[in-house]
Amino acid sequence: MNVRTGGRRREVSVPDLVSRAREGQHAAVARLLTLVEDASPLLHEVMTALAPHWGRAHVVGLTGSPGVGKSTSTNALVGELRRRGQRVAVLAVDPSSPFSGGALLGDRVRMGDHTGDPDVYIRSMASRGHLGGLSWAAPQAVRVLDAVGFDTVLVETVGVGQSEVEIAGLADTTVVLLAPGMGDGIQAAKAGILEIGDLYVVNKADRDGADVVRRDLRTMLSHSERPEGSWRRPVLKAVARSGEGMPEVVAKLAEHKEWLSTSGELTRRRTARAQREVEAIALETMRRRWGSVGEQGILADLAGRVVAGRLDPHTAADQLLDR
Amino acid sequence: MNVRTGGRRREVSVPDLVSRAREGQHAAVARLLTLVEDASPLLHEVMTALAPHWGRAHVVGLTGSPGVGKSTSTNALVGELRRRGQRVAVLAVDPSSPFSGGALLGDRVRMGDHTGDPDVYIRSMASRGHLGGLSWAAPQAVRVLDAVGFDTVLVETVGVGQSEVEIAGLADTTVVLLAPGMGDGIQAAKAGILEIGDLYVVNKADRDGADVVRRDLRTMLSHSERPEGSWRRPVLKAVARSGEGMPEVVAKLAEHKEWLSTSGELTRRRTARAQREVEAIALETMRRRWGSVGEQGILADLAGRVVAGRLDPHTAADQLLDR
Repeated sequence: MNVRTGGRRREVSVPDLVSRAREGQHAAVARLLTLVEDASPLLHEVMTALAPHWGRAHVVGLTGSPGVGKSTSTNALVGELRRRGQRVAVLAVDPSSPFSGGALLGDRVRMGDHTGDPDVYIRSMASRGHLGGLSWAAPQAVRVLDAVGFDTVLVETVGVGQSEVEIAGLADTTVVLLAPGMGDGIQAAKAGILEIGDLYVVNKADRDGADVVRRDLRTMLSHSERPEGSWRRPVLKAVARSGEGMPEVVAKLAEHKEWLSTSGELTRRRTARAQREVEAIALETMRRRWGSVGEQGILADLAGRVVAGRLDPHTAADQLLDR
Repeated sequence: MNVRTGGRRREVSVPDLVSRAREGQHAAVARLLTLVEDASPLLHEVMTALAPHWGRAHVVGLTGSPGVGKSTSTNALVGELRRRGQRVAVLAVDPSSPFSGGALLGDRVRMGDHTGDPDVYIRSMASRGHLGGLSWAAPQAVRVLDAVGFDTVLVETVGVGQSEVEIAGLADTTVVLLAPGMGDGIQAAKAGILEIGDLYVVNKADRDGADVVRRDLRTMLSHSERPEGSWRRPVLKAVARSGEGMPEVVAKLAEHKEWLSTSGELTRRRTARAQREVEAIALETMRRRWGSVGEQGILADLAGRVVAGRLDPHTAADQLLDR
């Protein structure tokens, strides 16, 4: 990073950048997140500088099928959290778009009602075409937003399919959104959302069928077994467009955060998240040593012998690890 | 494995099991695939025994949104391949179901018209709840079916979302199914199917709108740039339920296989596949050493220090790799 100072180019140091981001400068936050996205060699130093500061934010995952009103709900949630004086960051991730080199939605479009609010920061992130992209970059982006001082980090998934499950792995609290008229019962069972939600919100509750969705979901939730002392998962109703029901959602989020802390579940979840993150970074390091798929290198050589039937894949893997 | 022989228990050796599978005994094939699914310690020996025999089968991936008629099309394709005297295996994988410990559909139900045909073998496979499950087990299952002598291995995805892309990574030839009235244009663009298909089939072509789907898809395909000498991706029409159009699909599959061989693309694809497979096995080995996510072990210890802000995840990853 270069800035002009008194006619000379000068490096902005990582500690300096971290300080600026912690003072609330959006440009510095953006620069840190770009270092994460680009897997910059500076990232190691960035994370070292941030480490003492993370762990304060409440990380909330927001997921649901396309059409349930995720963006509108995020916008309404941000508004409600702002009314309570919180600083809020939104990370919109799209893990289902492996061919996209950039984010699908412009961050400016996403800002919605919060353009110009210095205490709201919104950023989109795509998975950049490599497997493990989300597992690698997203948790580190969350660490940045946490450590620079946002009170709540909302992680919204823009994708479909397995993304719901991955989002649940990123968050302290996972909110699953539903809406009437979308065959949600079957979708819920199929996508595994019964397993991942801490809080369910039936959005568009002014439409016909909202009570049916809520009742069906409650029935399904009551049938899925949970150990003694588990969090009792509420099913709320809301109309994100008007903000109706949002105070109750935010109250339940706070309640769940409290439950996470007292039950020890917060540490358990965060440790599991850090395990996946450290593992993903370690794997990425290995991949750089081996040569990535599609490139020449040790891996390509071994794979060629497997294809030819001269080596089995397990022996190949052993040889890869031995080098 | 134990069988009773003359009143005594006797081990069935891996070479014996491989021989039986190659003679066409379905029970032996099933046993080999179970060893793959269970990540058996015998797998290394199994793969060593199979290595000289793989590489002959044409691996065809079949994908498409729910409702396009994947099962019916698989069934019709199997019928057409059988009429040409081929031995056919079907592997139905469901990578979108991480919480399922077993396959969603009974294999007997899936057999359709081919119950009792000794030259047709059908097996479902779920991803068993661990990330990388499909990348680990599915390519080895394909190796088994290839090496025991099936001429065509059809890999059908039962899932949604990223599974299409993963399936494409498993196959020599990827067939993308579409159907009228499903908003396929947008779906196609979204799911990245324009990038993965070698052959597109508009199923349910007796319904209104089939020609529109075909025309739109052709337009989209013509807009996506391809290097000189690329395979020209055909868009066929079919009615899988009646078998109409299936001979043309099978003819195109054979033509693509031929093109793959002569262009060198077959080796390139298979090498890339083997690279991912070897990498996944190596990672699995590492994970066993580190302790899996959620378990105690080196990884859990390091992750705990990351959560506490006493270590950054990159240093943790370095320490993990150093041990």
